[in-house]
Amino acid sequence: MPAEVKSLNEECGVFGVFGAPDANHLTYLGLHTLQHRGQEGAGIVTTDGQEMYQYRNRGLLAHVFRNQADLDGLVGEAAIGHVRYATAGRQTLANVQPFLFNFHDGDVALAHNGNLTNAVTLRRQLEDEGAVFQSDSDSEILIHLIRKHIKAGFIPALKQSLNEVHGGFAFLLLQKDRLIAALDPNGLRPLVIGQMENGAYVIASESCALDIVGAKLIRDVQPGEIIIVDRDGLHTDRFTDKTQLAICSMEFVYFARPDSIIHGVTVHNARKQMGRLLAQEHPVDADIVIGVPNSSLSAASGYAEGSGLPYEMGLIKSQYVARSFIQPTQALRERAVALKLSAVRGVVAGKRVAVVDDSIVRGTTSQKIVKMLRDAGAKEVHLLIASPPFRFPCFYGIDISTRSELMAAHYSVEEMRKKIGADSLNFLSVENLVKAINLPDTGDAPYQGLTVAYFNGDYPTPLYDYEASYLASFNAQEQRMRKEQLK
Amino acid sequence: MPAEVKSLNEECGVFGVFGAPDANHLTYLGLHTLQHRGQEGAGIVTTDGQEMYQYRNRGLLAHVFRNQADLDGLVGEAAIGHVRYATAGRQTLANVQPFLFNFHDGDVALAHNGNLTNAVTLRRQLEDEGAVFQSDSDSEILIHLIRKHIKAGFIPALKQSLNEVHGGFAFLLLQKDRLIAALDPNGLRPLVIGQMENGAYVIASESCALDIVGAKLIRDVQPGEIIIVDRDGLHTDRFTDKTQLAICSMEFVYFARPDSIIHGVTVHNARKQMGRLLAQEHPVDADIVIGVPNSSLSAASGYAEGSGLPYEMGLIKSQYVARSFIQPTQALRERAVALKLSAVRGVVAGKRVAVVDDSIVRGTTSQKIVKMLRDAGAKEVHLLIASPPFRFPCFYGIDISTRSELMAAHYSVEEMRKKIGADSLNFLSVENLVKAINLPDTGDAPYQGLTVAYFNGDYPTPLYDYEASYLASFNAQEQRMRKEQLK
Amino acid sequence: MPAEVKSLNEECGVFGVFGAPDANHLTYLGLHTLQHRGQEGAGIVTTDGQEMYQYRNRGLLAHVFRNQADLDGLVGEAAIGHVRYATAGRQTLANVQPFLFNFHDGDVALAHNGNLTNAVTLRRQLEDEGAVFQSDSDSEILIHLIRKHIKAGFIPALKQSLNEVHGGFAFLLLQKDRLIAALDPNGLRPLVIGQMENGAYVIASESCALDIVGAKLIRDVQPGEIIIVDRDGLHTDRFTDKTQLAICSMEFVYFARPDSIIHGVTVHNARKQMGRLLAQEHPVDADIVIGVPNSSLSAASGYAEGSGLPYEMGLIKSQYVARSFIQPTQALRERAVALKLSAVRGVVAGKRVAVVDDSIVRGTTSQKIVKMLRDAGAKEVHLLIASPPFRFPCFYGIDISTRSELMAAHYSVEEMRKKIGADSLNFLSVENLVKAINLPDTGDAPYQGLTVAYFNGDYPTPLYDYEASYLASFNAQEQRMRKEQLK
Amino acid sequence: MPAEVKSLNEECGVFGVFGAPDANHLTYLGLHTLQHRGQEGAGIVTTDGQEMYQYRNRGLLAHVFRNQADLDGLVGEAAIGHVRYATAGRQTLANVQPFLFNFHDGDVALAHNGNLTNAVTLRRQLEDEGAVFQSDSDSEILIHLIRKHIKAGFIPALKQSLNEVHGGFAFLLLQKDRLIAALDPNGLRPLVIGQMENGAYVIASESCALDIVGAKLIRDVQPGEIIIVDRDGLHTDRFTDKTQLAICSMEFVYFARPDSIIHGVTVHNARKQMGRLLAQEHPVDADIVIGVPNSSLSAASGYAEGSGLPYEMGLIKSQYVARSFIQPTQALRERAVALKLSAVRGVVAGKRVAVVDDSIVRGTTSQKIVKMLRDAGAKEVHLLIASPPFRFPCFYGIDISTRSELMAAHYSVEEMRKKIGADSLNFLSVENLVKAINLPDTGDAPYQGLTVAYFNGDYPTPLYDYEASYLASFNAQEQRMRKEQLK
Repeated sequence: MPAEVKSLNEECGVFGVFGAPDANHLTYLGLHTLQHRGQEGAGIVTTDGQEMYQYRNRGLLAHVFRNQADLDGLVGEAAIGHVRYATAGRQTLANVQPFLFNFHDGDVALAHNGNLTNAVTLRRQLEDEGAVFQSDSDSEILIHLIRKHIKAGFIPALKQSLNEVHGGFAFLLLQKDRLIAALDPNGLRPLVIGQMENGAYVIASESCALDIVGAKLIRDVQPGEIIIVDRDGLHTDRFTDKTQLAICSMEFVYFARPDSIIHGVTVHNARKQMGRLLAQEHPVDADIVIGVPNSSLSAASGYAEGSGLPYEMGLIKSQYVARSFIQPTQALRERAVALKLSAVRGVVAGKRVAVVDDSIVRGTTSQKIVKMLRDAGAKEVHLLIASPPFRFPCFYGIDISTRSELMAAHYSVEEMRKKIGADSLNFLSVENLVKAINLPDTGDAPYQGLTVAYFNGDYPTPLYDYEASYLASFNAQEQRMRKEQLK
Repeated sequence: MPAEVKSLNEECGVFGVFGAPDANHLTYLGLHTLQHRGQEGAGIVTTDGQEMYQYRNRGLLAHVFRNQADLDGLVGEAAIGHVRYATAGRQTLANVQPFLFNFHDGDVALAHNGNLTNAVTLRRQLEDEGAVFQSDSDSEILIHLIRKHIKAGFIPALKQSLNEVHGGFAFLLLQKDRLIAALDPNGLRPLVIGQMENGAYVIASESCALDIVGAKLIRDVQPGEIIIVDRDGLHTDRFTDKTQLAICSMEFVYFARPDSIIHGVTVHNARKQMGRLLAQEHPVDADIVIGVPNSSLSAASGYAEGSGLPYEMGLIKSQYVARSFIQPTQALRERAVALKLSAVRGVVAGKRVAVVDDSIVRGTTSQKIVKMLRDAGAKEVHLLIASPPFRFPCFYGIDISTRSELMAAHYSVEEMRKKIGADSLNFLSVENLVKAINLPDTGDAPYQGLTVAYFNGDYPTPLYDYEASYLASFNAQEQRMRKEQLK
Repeated sequence: MPAEVKSLNEECGVFGVFGAPDANHLTYLGLHTLQHRGQEGAGIVTTDGQEMYQYRNRGLLAHVFRNQADLDGLVGEAAIGHVRYATAGRQTLANVQPFLFNFHDGDVALAHNGNLTNAVTLRRQLEDEGAVFQSDSDSEILIHLIRKHIKAGFIPALKQSLNEVHGGFAFLLLQKDRLIAALDPNGLRPLVIGQMENGAYVIASESCALDIVGAKLIRDVQPGEIIIVDRDGLHTDRFTDKTQLAICSMEFVYFARPDSIIHGVTVHNARKQMGRLLAQEHPVDADIVIGVPNSSLSAASGYAEGSGLPYEMGLIKSQYVARSFIQPTQALRERAVALKLSAVRGVVAGKRVAVVDDSIVRGTTSQKIVKMLRDAGAKEVHLLIASPPFRFPCFYGIDISTRSELMAAHYSVEEMRKKIGADSLNFLSVENLVKAINLPDTGDAPYQGLTVAYFNGDYPTPLYDYEASYLASFNAQEQRMRKEQLK
Repeated sequence: MPAEVKSLNEECGVFGVFGAPDANHLTYLGLHTLQHRGQEGAGIVTTDGQEMYQYRNRGLLAHVFRNQADLDGLVGEAAIGHVRYATAGRQTLANVQPFLFNFHDGDVALAHNGNLTNAVTLRRQLEDEGAVFQSDSDSEILIHLIRKHIKAGFIPALKQSLNEVHGGFAFLLLQKDRLIAALDPNGLRPLVIGQMENGAYVIASESCALDIVGAKLIRDVQPGEIIIVDRDGLHTDRFTDKTQLAICSMEFVYFARPDSIIHGVTVHNARKQMGRLLAQEHPVDADIVIGVPNSSLSAASGYAEGSGLPYEMGLIKSQYVARSFIQPTQALRERAVALKLSAVRGVVAGKRVAVVDDSIVRGTTSQKIVKMLRDAGAKEVHLLIASPPFRFPCFYGIDISTRSELMAAHYSVEEMRKKIGADSLNFLSVENLVKAINLPDTGDAPYQGLTVAYFNGDYPTPLYDYEASYLASFNAQEQRMRKEQLK
């Protein structure tokens, strides 16, 4: 679960169900467990086979659905839902998904997790041909493409459209009589299929959303696959054969819930193993090991186990962090940081502390944590990061699309240590990260089926609209090398 | 920090400051760290030496203070604040503290943590003498008593009144020119004094509230003590000499934040020690140790350390538990429990699991946790409670004032185990609880200065209005024994 | 109905019913028709014979009661309600009526229209004897007095208390088993009794509130009278025999709804007659007669009829005046006045216009109206006021308790005309005002049973707490005269 | 101003300004005066020449713009605004105007008053060509047409599109550097141009919106005209020469504010003249004349003047009609009608009353008014309608598009009188209606430039998508006649 103190955000979570009474409530429960994937907006679209019903708004799920009546209006046995993190751009209601489009020949709802890399080009082309967009979201492009090809029929139009969009995408679509899921050719974003006792199918971003509704995890949706669920059951199809699994490694490092199982790997176990391997790779002289709550606690306990040092609670996170916190006066601004995270003086005072964190993005949080621990009396602070230095942007659905804000893109590890103020700073290697996650049955896939581009720039796909600005962010010499590296 | 899954609630938290610019913001920050002590209402009263300003409402602090303007109206360099847990009775605005009373000879504001044991008797007497109460709260009684004696002057009237009320109380009062604190003769509720760099004094329920505003912990307020802070500094006085420290042991077991220091003891450390002693007292054959988040994690890691078993994250708590969660349909009600707490299948499946929890009140949560772990594949579930069986009600400020809802009041440990469905169930002994907390410098005070009446019925004071119904809750034979035991 | 453009406010409206199913809904309807008497707060207390139920908040009735559930919680067949205009002081919830007081020997709810002239003295005495007030409202004093005398029994205590408070008051009290009404010895505020078809009694500030619930007007409550309604029917009693009707003449001029009948007189008819007599007293050379909507339309049509001039719609008032209107920028502030009231160019352009208004308080509105008409092309603007110059404050329940804000207290009619910018300015005489209202059966009561103190300083009662500051507002010479004039 | 008691609703009001600081506040003021044209939604789009800014929501203007910040975000010197009446279909936010469309080659905002008669056909065609609509509103069609033709340039594309849509329309469009207005070839909806002192141009549905911002009325936009306002001033153009003025007569009868001037005629004066001609056409034996507030007061005073009968206030309308009124219980439902409108017993009792109303739609309101007057004691009730029987639907922007709900479409005048319960019922003739409005300079235009189709079925345009269902609403014989009558 992402600590809100970090500026690293997954862009979305999706949930769909077909063939279940209480589809509205099931989707509400499912979205609740996916809330960590997006806190800026939420919505549900249902259908009773005749009409489609939409309810959405900005804010947390519990803020969006405040009254029983909000859910009660969403009738029917099929539904898709979405929780959204607003990336750049406007946080308007128009951008909150699922989108619902009305056509004289049948309505379509759409929910999307991911990011398209050729969205700008496609939108410009579509607008020149007469398209009128209603949102800033790249997710809307798929519908315009489908309508462009609609004379071929809906599924053929969808397949053709899925071959025209590029990047990372997990799409859920709802029509009056079916639920459709589609995953990009690299399976960059997670998407799992489950089944309830009554036979109803559930498709969701993470398996924790299956657990909450009592659905059994069947399998992960495969790269390039289209899943269609209708009255006759679940059908599988493909829109391309050029596929290669390259799932985002940050899902394991930071985004996914510790109880989720992705491609057979329990996230908590992967994190604990990152901690153990980190202890092997970078042992430190310390009295206690502490983690940064909540996302780094698994890795920290792994590090404690691996190093034989005692595991302590040296930092605590408030349960009551207000999203709408009133800004303190200038004089108190620094203190307010401690509202979210505070050091336990009675634990760390006089100790040499090994702090385990999952990753460093901007570095500002690390800086504050080190200061907080020293203020509480820690004798030494050793910072251990359970992933490699985050040096390259993500174009597939994480809210880091330029290098400018990445500390590790601009400083050496020793420079970072100095800025952060730690006594030592160490990172897990890419090799050990891959080894810790250890995706099964991925054959000779690079990095055992993981995308590790954030750490080494080795992107699994061309970058399309982003390529020019990405390359421009390097100096001349490195540009050549990076260009080479891109497919 | 209290897990919201438990029906055990502290009744309040208080915070006061005198002599500080930004008194409103400081109090807001302080109340934020005390939010775990009361989530049903919050308020602040400030004074600029001329007027007094009040803002309060039902709900969480962040809900009460939604706009900058809400705080901005609270001008002045002195303030008191309150977070409230609504016990029985009406959750009306009129009951939200601090109360502000206007008199032609000077306004008084009041904030109270605790519970008066002779409130019913006093209120009836006062009403017969002409008093008109504005709330259902026993806290209001103090003001009526003070006004009854006001001709003697405010402080003498206050002292006399403090001798007329009984039970557990930590009062903060604010007048235009001073801040006053008073603690009951047994010091049942915690109350600490801190000082800021600019010399301003802060008085709060827990030291974590001093930390957030950058105040240094000076000492705990002593039983029977009155503290007066005005332009001339801090003055100390007493309203009685018949005092004997008997602070509530549940503050250490469950209520207080792990980073708070009470009478010299860091709460996390006390909890970890409870876990270690529990491991000595009740070793179990298990593969892993897990804690019930968040309040039991310290004890669980202590148990792991004491037993040498690996400490794992087998239960996770959602960060996004909605207070205003929409009720699921009947069919889904059981599932919704997992929204707050869920088991990590990948961790517990196939394992013999030792679960550490801090206490058992009704037993329903324990039952759900055991079922949840078994559903996730745990082979055995051993429940270990880091405090003794909770068998007797509290009349001093915890929301358990009848025996009827206490599982341990009605069943043996073996009966409890069966109902809960665990493979084994064990509790920490009273002796080890006292030893784990280990309050320093308490001489020959019973239980080293702790109240452990919840576990053994040994109340440190007479029960007044509650005595009759307390005794009536026992059968004839036990009534004699319990009557004997009461002072 | 009061035009909101005038700074002249009635302080309250009250409504009570006993013995009717739907008491909550009936009170809601009744308060709706009394909304013009107070827009700052509203509330209802009901009783089912066992418990009492309260709901109140700041704002208009429709804002206070937003959901069906707000009303549904108010069960029982008896209720009192209140709409409030916040005079000076704090617009806090604590001041919104009906007040509900809980006593161990039975709850009491209270609603009050009027103003007590010895409130400061009484409150000081009560506080010195130990009383704790919960509001700033003088209305609360009655309850403290009753409790002081409670040993004599409730009704005797009430009678004694009613003799201790002075000024203008119409009180409604609700107990579990009865509804009580009481009117001051001068009957300064209106209060009428009605009966429904099912026999239930209704008591309200104005008869329009009887009409809406289908109750038949029986009679006005008499000065010094106490009405008690219980299961046995309606009982009448008196708390004093020293009574003399002196009802506020401004109820007829401005406050009451045109369809209300007060002491036998339909308000619209009284106003129309004021207009006719004004036409006799002050004929003008004009082309058309227009009224200031809405309160002056009756008088204007009377003037038109009396003068033989055509009656036109030269000013219109917006139906959509926002109470929470966003402040325009400085440059536009003047324009925003026209949002409430605007001149009809096509009607007034090129005309000599006679504008009839009911009264002048500060004069600022008159100034704006004259300017507005001239801007719209009026050739001449003759201002005709259907009441005498408002020169003296009111201490009985109108929000004008100092002379400082009264234009006519400081300027001659000619000076006022110049400041306002009209071509002529004329007022109705006190004699014609009394003649226009023409209260029946008032014998030799001064001014035929009306209070006209606002126009001539002849107050029907001593002024108590207000006397000193009232006299101090005059120069030495006039002080003597005014002192003489006071009883 | 429309009485809310009538089920007759204008569909919208528009306001635009170019070249004025405070464009946001000016538009807010303008929309406020146009609030009677739409109460279901409101919005403003502004531009500072770089970006466009939108704020809109459902509800009244004062509800939509609640905080200063809502307006402050709308920066720039050009703006368009819209108030909306939701006709059929979904009252979703997506349908609230102005719409704002983002294109890579420049954003466009759109506000529309009117109704397109070929919307269904056009939308189906566009969707088949790939268009994705975001609202149910026919207003959105214009943008899709423009984009379809965009390669020709914006203004040529607009002109072509305006020739493809049919019906009644007054469009305002805003681009970064210009404000555009367009009116349908019959000028069915009103649209006026004004100019402020600083030279800025204002275009609005009614001249009252010019008055409030201090703009001088220049002229009405002409049928078929396009107005373009940019930095260089105001330019005029045409999209067709086939024009013929046929402005909606109901604007004069009911919709427009009495102070507005449309094609040179002040609405109040037209209404008063309708009343005078009605008195000539249908004199009645009565004691008094009263009007139904507020929309019929002008006509009523005209009738009084024409007949020589006294004009009285026999019905009053509450100022405090809550839009969100809590539904009374079944027993009280009938009473609640009187919350909006009530009879003045003291005026009508014992009288023969002539009631003037502007029109009859369903007849239910008339029924209630007659009953209300009789209940208040009226001896006779004569109903006089200041317009002809409303027998045919409107397809140009009034919310009456089927005959089923029109009383006069199904009953003779005598049948209507019986149902309504009046002693007599009379209507103004079409000839006198035309004569009362008396539009100047309209040459040989049918009905002097008015649409009177609601009264005689003589529509000024073909009906397109509506023709089939319109004709189907008649019996076979009449169908032929009505088909003939359509162009």
